[in-house]
Amino acid sequence: MRPFQILIDFAEAKAIAMAAVSPMERTESVVLEEAAGRVLVAEVTAPHDVPSFAQARMDGYALIAAETASAEAGTPAVLTCQETVHAGCRPSRPVGPGHCSQIATGAMIPQGADAVVKVEDTEREGEKVFVRRPFQLGQNISPAGHDLKAGEVVVAAESLLTPARLGALATVGCLTVTVYAKPRVAIIPTGDEVIPLDLKLKPGQVYNTNTYTLAGAITQFGAQPIIHPEIVADDRSCLKAAIESHDECDVVVVSGGSSVGERDFVPDVFSEMGQVLFHGVAVKPGKPTILASNGNQLLLGMPGFPTSCLSNAYVLLGPMIQKMARLPAREQAAVRLPLASRVVSEPERHQFYSVRIADGQVCPTFKGSGAITSMSEADGYIEIPAGVDHVEKGELVDVNLF
Amino acid sequence: MRPFQILIDFAEAKAIAMAAVSPMERTESVVLEEAAGRVLVAEVTAPHDVPSFAQARMDGYALIAAETASAEAGTPAVLTCQETVHAGCRPSRPVGPGHCSQIATGAMIPQGADAVVKVEDTEREGEKVFVRRPFQLGQNISPAGHDLKAGEVVVAAESLLTPARLGALATVGCLTVTVYAKPRVAIIPTGDEVIPLDLKLKPGQVYNTNTYTLAGAITQFGAQPIIHPEIVADDRSCLKAAIESHDECDVVVVSGGSSVGERDFVPDVFSEMGQVLFHGVAVKPGKPTILASNGNQLLLGMPGFPTSCLSNAYVLLGPMIQKMARLPAREQAAVRLPLASRVVSEPERHQFYSVRIADGQVCPTFKGSGAITSMSEADGYIEIPAGVDHVEKGELVDVNLF
Repeated sequence: MRPFQILIDFAEAKAIAMAAVSPMERTESVVLEEAAGRVLVAEVTAPHDVPSFAQARMDGYALIAAETASAEAGTPAVLTCQETVHAGCRPSRPVGPGHCSQIATGAMIPQGADAVVKVEDTEREGEKVFVRRPFQLGQNISPAGHDLKAGEVVVAAESLLTPARLGALATVGCLTVTVYAKPRVAIIPTGDEVIPLDLKLKPGQVYNTNTYTLAGAITQFGAQPIIHPEIVADDRSCLKAAIESHDECDVVVVSGGSSVGERDFVPDVFSEMGQVLFHGVAVKPGKPTILASNGNQLLLGMPGFPTSCLSNAYVLLGPMIQKMARLPAREQAAVRLPLASRVVSEPERHQFYSVRIADGQVCPTFKGSGAITSMSEADGYIEIPAGVDHVEKGELVDVNLF
Repeated sequence: MRPFQILIDFAEAKAIAMAAVSPMERTESVVLEEAAGRVLVAEVTAPHDVPSFAQARMDGYALIAAETASAEAGTPAVLTCQETVHAGCRPSRPVGPGHCSQIATGAMIPQGADAVVKVEDTEREGEKVFVRRPFQLGQNISPAGHDLKAGEVVVAAESLLTPARLGALATVGCLTVTVYAKPRVAIIPTGDEVIPLDLKLKPGQVYNTNTYTLAGAITQFGAQPIIHPEIVADDRSCLKAAIESHDECDVVVVSGGSSVGERDFVPDVFSEMGQVLFHGVAVKPGKPTILASNGNQLLLGMPGFPTSCLSNAYVLLGPMIQKMARLPAREQAAVRLPLASRVVSEPERHQFYSVRIADGQVCPTFKGSGAITSMSEADGYIEIPAGVDHVEKGELVDVNLF
């Protein structure tokens, strides 16, 4: 066993990791209905005005506004309705003095008309339409280009494609879009004690947990998880072969074997395959974390204990994926509430301490790095900085919600 | 044209809609790696203790704590190391007085041992291990059942399957889980003026926008969008046939044709097919919204204007889907900031007003219900209640972030 010589601060480790991440360059073409949540590569500009014609905003009558200028309750403007313009149709005639055309919401304004008076503001007798007050020029009309003018940027480069932005692309007839590829993140579970879920546990064995927590978190952060088909034995050459089998991935995450024990081969294998950027972080849980780069890929070694592994996925791997995917950093939802009971912390390490919210109070759920219920029963976590050895009951703490 | 007689309040419309929603009863079985974000049907209990054996939390030496009771720097406890216990292996012998076993993180504690002293707190010469201070009973050991005891609830019924809960299910060997089916929500775009994205626009025509915004929002809220393969003409029987073709869906959303114009057939068709629960909501955008129930399905008629349709999807359809899917209501992220310019509102209607955040101020982006850029350029929306006709520049407003 080779004890850690120096631990680096979590903030430093995160800064090194983020600096090592290159934003994605690979792109792919996807149809618009599958583009939600993806990141647009190049700006899209409008090839035409949207709408491409002056459009009625209301069901009513298209008319000349000036003709209503002196309309009053007792002396209405009286106009002859000459046709009905339905949505999707071209008006068959212009609107001249003394005339109007009935028009549907979304339909094309006839030439000559410069206002739409909504049906509720009119009365009708046969072909005669009565308007009993003045209406303004442009009333209830969206001019051509009101939404987007030809040449205008519809969606900017590197935008996240929200439902509304999919709609904006649709209004200009954009059927497929070029988006950045999702980062591919390989998950390699390791450990002689770890077995797949379909086998029966023998003494000393545990089920493979990290593949599932990591796959969930990696998906949530916007990358594509690639699950290694086997649990890799604590063996140097098996581990190296497993990592090498994922040379198409942007990140390879290995769970287990990242510490300083006799059979922890991850540090040696990472050193052999690339440059180690850090090993050992002053954080709890997650101390035996190692990051290396082989030039094309980042190799991240995570502790095998389920809570250490998942905590790292949230606080380190997640932000790395977001930068790589060119996604905006997630808005971290947080609430500030009093602590239900005193919490002690190791002052040498920055702690991410999992908690549950109950009755307006923050209750510890952290049972140890090995216990996944530390996190499965938690609503979020609080951070206790290095140098602090306890937080008192009743103190207000910021809970970062999962 | 048949003007709206009465508009109901938005809060009332939402209450009616939520009361009309039945939580999903259909279930399906999915493998654990595809269960993220789904809702578990029945609680899962632990068939065995997790861990199923007392487990070392650290790399170090398993020993009898009492033997270190009088250890000091000058007079250490000196123990003979008898074997190394690797993770996944059974110890070959118990630990007796004067002895210890080297042990790896996660490995099984040998019989007789009741503490693990981490490697950094020892010195070693050959088979001799020196411990220079006392250690407590149970130190660095997770007893069997520390994470979960046999019979204990692993994940409760109706829980959202977060990454951590997937991990908890994995620790008890749960390979597949029964989850609630996702609600199926059909999207039927209508309108003679609306054309698919692969055709060339003629005067008076617009591209189909709502299918894409709705599909994105429906997916985001946790349901499965089923896109109707055609844009349905403004024709009573075509519309009815289109709705009937989706009898396997839980909700059918029709965009367009929901108002009171001559060719707005949605209200008539909904009345024919079921019971109309409301038609016309005092909200902007989104007034001509109609909800009906045919006993098995909810039928939701949305305005055809893109911003009206998407705004409704966020504030009305989204919460309906979440209740139906048995998902927890989304934590609405919000920020409170000053308004960059005065906003006027129709006092008769509750307004959802789209805004962008720039330089710490809230800037209007709302250009009208027909303009999708009202929303594609927005970061969220503010609400202006009915009865308020303006909000002054500089007033603090709560922005609900998309």
